[in-house]
Amino acid sequence: MPTPDNPTTDKKIAVLIAEGLEEVEALAVVDVVFRAGIRAELIAVGDSLTVTSSHKVVLTCEALLSEVDLDDYDMVFLPGGIPGTPNLKAVPAVTDEVTARVQAGRPVAAICAAPSILAELGLLQGRDATSNPNFMGVLAEHGARTSQAAVVVDDQLLTSRGMGTAIELGLEIVRHYLGDDAVDAVKRGIVYQH
Amino acid sequence: MPTPDNPTTDKKIAVLIAEGLEEVEALAVVDVVFRAGIRAELIAVGDSLTVTSSHKVVLTCEALLSEVDLDDYDMVFLPGGIPGTPNLKAVPAVTDEVTARVQAGRPVAAICAAPSILAELGLLQGRDATSNPNFMGVLAEHGARTSQAAVVVDDQLLTSRGMGTAIELGLEIVRHYLGDDAVDAVKRGIVYQH
Repeated sequence: MPTPDNPTTDKKIAVLIAEGLEEVEALAVVDVVFRAGIRAELIAVGDSLTVTSSHKVVLTCEALLSEVDLDDYDMVFLPGGIPGTPNLKAVPAVTDEVTARVQAGRPVAAICAAPSILAELGLLQGRDATSNPNFMGVLAEHGARTSQAAVVVDDQLLTSRGMGTAIELGLEIVRHYLGDDAVDAVKRGIVYQH
Repeated sequence: MPTPDNPTTDKKIAVLIAEGLEEVEALAVVDVVFRAGIRAELIAVGDSLTVTSSHKVVLTCEALLSEVDLDDYDMVFLPGGIPGTPNLKAVPAVTDEVTARVQAGRPVAAICAAPSILAELGLLQGRDATSNPNFMGVLAEHGARTSQAAVVVDDQLLTSRGMGTAIELGLEIVRHYLGDDAVDAVKRGIVYQH
C-alpha cells in the first residue's frame, strides 16, 4: 500500500474509500503525494477491504475505517463519485470526523461531489470552496463562497472540482506539506505540462 | 470491470497490466474512455488477477492474458511504470502481439516508459512518437522521430509521456473512435480546464 520508500514527512493522509467512488480522483492524489514522499492510506469505510469504483475498477484498501484511529492521520481526504459520495455521507464515523476536524481547523480535502458533504453538514458557511459544477449550488445554498478555480485552499480546507483537477489537488497537498520546490519536482516527474 | 452501461462503440481496448505498473496511467485512460462509452478491460499479463502497482496500490483485473484472445480487442494499450514496463516487455505474448499489430497497422497505445518496448522491438523506425523524458534517447536510438508533445498520433500508433499526460492520451483515444464532440463532452464531465 502507498508507503513511499523515502518519506519526507511523518504526516500521513487518510483517503476514505466508499463503494462507487471515482477511483482516479483518489489514486491521482495518492500518486502525486507518494512521489513527494508523503504517505496516503486507502481506508475502506465499509465492511470489506475490496471496493468497486463507479467505473467498476476493483481496488483493495489497506485498512478498514473501523480498525484505524483517524487521529493518527494529519489530513482526511474525501474523493468524489456517485454513489461514492452519498455512500461516504451515510457513514456517521465519516461525518462525525470531518465535522470535528473542520471545527478544530485540522486539514480536510474533498473533490468533485464530496465537498457537498461538508456543505450539507454546515461546515462551509463563510468558507471559500469549490466542487463539481453540478454541486456548486449546494455549496452556495449552505453559505460557501464558491469559486471555479481548480483547487481552492481556505486555511486547512482544500476543495477541488473533478477527476480532471485531481492532479492539481494532489500538487496543492504537496505544497501544503513541503512547499513549491517539491511541487515542481513532482510536476517534472509526472510530465505535467501545465 | 470497466463496461459502460451505454456503450457508444463495439470496439474495445485491452489494457495490459503487469506488476509494478503506474496505476493512474492505466486508470486515467480507462476512466476517460469509459465516460465516452468505450469499453477498456484490465488484463493481467501474469498468473494472478490481483496486481500491485509501483505505488503499492492493489488492483484486481478482469481477465488473465492467457484466457483472452487479443484479436477480440481493437486496441492494445501499454501503461508505463518501473518495473511495470520491463515486466511487460518480458512477456513474449505481449511483444509478439504488439509486433504483429504495429506491422499490420492496427491500433496500439503506450505511455511513459512503455513506448521504449516498441522502440526496442524496432517498431518505431521512422515513426513519430514520444515517451517519458528518460526514455526519449531509447526512442531516438531506434529511429523514432521524437516529439515533446503530450500525445503523439502517428496513424494507428498513439504514444504519450507520463502520468501527467494520461488524461490527454485518453482524450486522444476518444477522438480516435468518436471524434471531437465526444472529447469535449468528456472534458466537461471531468472538469478538465486545459
